Amino acid sequence: MVMDVGDYQSGDVLDCKGGVLMSGLVNAHTHTPMSILRGYKDDLDLHQWLSFMWEKEASIYNDIMNVGSEISVIEMLLSGTTAFVDMYFNPSGIKGLAEKYRIRAFAGETFMDNREDSESVKRRQESLSPSTFFKPIVNVHSLYTASLETLHKAAQIAKSQKTWIHMHVSETRQEVYSIKRKTGKFPVELLNETGFLNLIQAVHMGWITNQEISYMKGKTSTHCPTSNMKLATAGSFPFKEMHESGVNVTIGTDGAASNNSLDMFREMKTAVLLQRHSYWDLWVKASHVLEASTVNGYKLIGINGGEVKKGKVADLVILDRRSMLPLKEDRIVSNLVYNVTGNAVKTVIVGGEISYDVSMKETFLNRIETLYNEVKDL
Amino acid sequence: MVMDVGDYQSGDVLDCKGGVLMSGLVNAHTHTPMSILRGYKDDLDLHQWLSFMWEKEASIYNDIMNVGSEISVIEMLLSGTTAFVDMYFNPSGIKGLAEKYRIRAFAGETFMDNREDSESVKRRQESLSPSTFFKPIVNVHSLYTASLETLHKAAQIAKSQKTWIHMHVSETRQEVYSIKRKTGKFPVELLNETGFLNLIQAVHMGWITNQEISYMKGKTSTHCPTSNMKLATAGSFPFKEMHESGVNVTIGTDGAASNNSLDMFREMKTAVLLQRHSYWDLWVKASHVLEASTVNGYKLIGINGGEVKKGKVADLVILDRRSMLPLKEDRIVSNLVYNVTGNAVKTVIVGGEISYDVSMKETFLNRIETLYNEVKDL
Repeated sequence: MVMDVGDYQSGDVLDCKGGVLMSGLVNAHTHTPMSILRGYKDDLDLHQWLSFMWEKEASIYNDIMNVGSEISVIEMLLSGTTAFVDMYFNPSGIKGLAEKYRIRAFAGETFMDNREDSESVKRRQESLSPSTFFKPIVNVHSLYTASLETLHKAAQIAKSQKTWIHMHVSETRQEVYSIKRKTGKFPVELLNETGFLNLIQAVHMGWITNQEISYMKGKTSTHCPTSNMKLATAGSFPFKEMHESGVNVTIGTDGAASNNSLDMFREMKTAVLLQRHSYWDLWVKASHVLEASTVNGYKLIGINGGEVKKGKVADLVILDRRSMLPLKEDRIVSNLVYNVTGNAVKTVIVGGEISYDVSMKETFLNRIETLYNEVKDL
Repeated sequence: MVMDVGDYQSGDVLDCKGGVLMSGLVNAHTHTPMSILRGYKDDLDLHQWLSFMWEKEASIYNDIMNVGSEISVIEMLLSGTTAFVDMYFNPSGIKGLAEKYRIRAFAGETFMDNREDSESVKRRQESLSPSTFFKPIVNVHSLYTASLETLHKAAQIAKSQKTWIHMHVSETRQEVYSIKRKTGKFPVELLNETGFLNLIQAVHMGWITNQEISYMKGKTSTHCPTSNMKLATAGSFPFKEMHESGVNVTIGTDGAASNNSLDMFREMKTAVLLQRHSYWDLWVKASHVLEASTVNGYKLIGINGGEVKKGKVADLVILDRRSMLPLKEDRIVSNLVYNVTGNAVKTVIVGGEISYDVSMKETFLNRIETLYNEVKDL
């Protein structure tokens, strides 16, 4: 099967023989610094775990965050992710890593009223500027940690920086009930009334009500199946209904403390499994989650990519064909989603140049180990 | 951390530096030949898929089954599985593969009245004998494809061969309702009344009723989370209740046509995720599924293993420590279950000798490709 993917332009010729070429994957929601907390007391009761996490996180300063982000960036490249959307407190560090490793990063300061007053956050956010592989986004942690006034402020900056707001929405029952009790409205309903919903990438959405789905038309929602299952937040992200209502559905791994992997291939499979189990229905297919992790992800980040096609940006992944046998035309999508893991990735190309090749694997793995050693006392 | 795992006996010394040593994993339910049908029309509606599968399977003769089983055996070794329980129609082929690859295989003929009369199956089953790595088991497909008379026959052979019956039980609502309508009893209730339940390894069990759990005390049940989620059979395997009632809970991948991976590390993680999502509860921990896939698996197959401990059989796996960072004592179990995949496996030892080492990886991967080429017209 040979397809024309564009006219020859210039540069090096890459031999893809023995490989399977596909679009790079977009991890639409993660917290890169949290790789350093991977596995930390993560089988305790949710509230116990959270209090341990917050305690630890209070001692994590910027240089440590950057160590965690570097670990996550390497792990994402190793497993075929070419772009990611991050929520944490070290966007400048992430900008440096994006340029160093040639991975597309979308990160920003995070508004969270119980952590820091919104004016200081605003000032730092305004100083962020884009670079080749980095673009600022505005993070608002959630409706239960940020006031509507803060959200207003965030929306103004998002507009002036021509970017979007990345926000946890309707993740838990507790959140939905508390917002409803306080305001008389459901979270998405409330966000719709602020007039800012079109700026918002709404993450998790396990507890969105049916009547709210229509407000999401033309907007972006992100599904994080593994993390929500592991934390037993329950709920059911309405993938089919969102898709049919014209919502741009994307997929994210969430942070390594709650997943604990950052492998988008595994995440795609888990997304199908969760949907099928929740709805007793086979409607969600491998092709849907592949589209959500490629085409839809690129739509979210505003880059014309996500497909191996003439005119699209060359953010590509080459997989070892022996990881996805039998290699038959009608089984490729099934194999990509249900069989492959990120370990099949041989080469990652971002913007037409190689960001990772399997010949760099040992170096990358050793670098991860060195980084973990730097924070081993944490 | 150094522990005494026994006195020095004899043989070669293996340098495990840089690795993490753990017990080998038991895949308690699979259909090895089905690797050749991996990805085949697997996103169709369940009944459409099944009719395509049956059509294809009718053309799969013994030599083709053995090709599929060899692929699966190699994949299982590559991902740290040291023993597996198989249901299909080529036990003699599997016996040969078990000896060739040094993996513990438990397979037998399969009673399935709509496929073949039970007398012919019985004759072939009686001719099966154990070898170093192979032991016959008796497969009864299910209560809806085998009569109670057939089950009687199977039980007699199982007793005379000092083995057990491996059987799909209460996998779908349809199955439970049809048995209840026909006999007035639920499947496990019915099996209990036959007097043979103590011989049965009951697989799937997503639709077992609460009152049946007590009958399972001291018996073995096998959870196949991925396959049941992918096929949207729904139901909820009552892991906690079975565990607390003294059931020996084990885990299996099911066949590659319905999973589509045979990686027990991925299966352990999915088991926790499914349990937590189904029950909105964090009770099932990484340690439970690790125990289910090691200690409990070895208990099922009647071999004193599943632990790195003095006196236990040396069925062991060595993992690349860089796949499970941060490597801290309190995070090892979390990392094994939530982070690692089979790709972290460097060495597999069965019965004290090496069955797979990462230096054989290319040879193994190429062998899989050669095998798929042999059946490429299927």
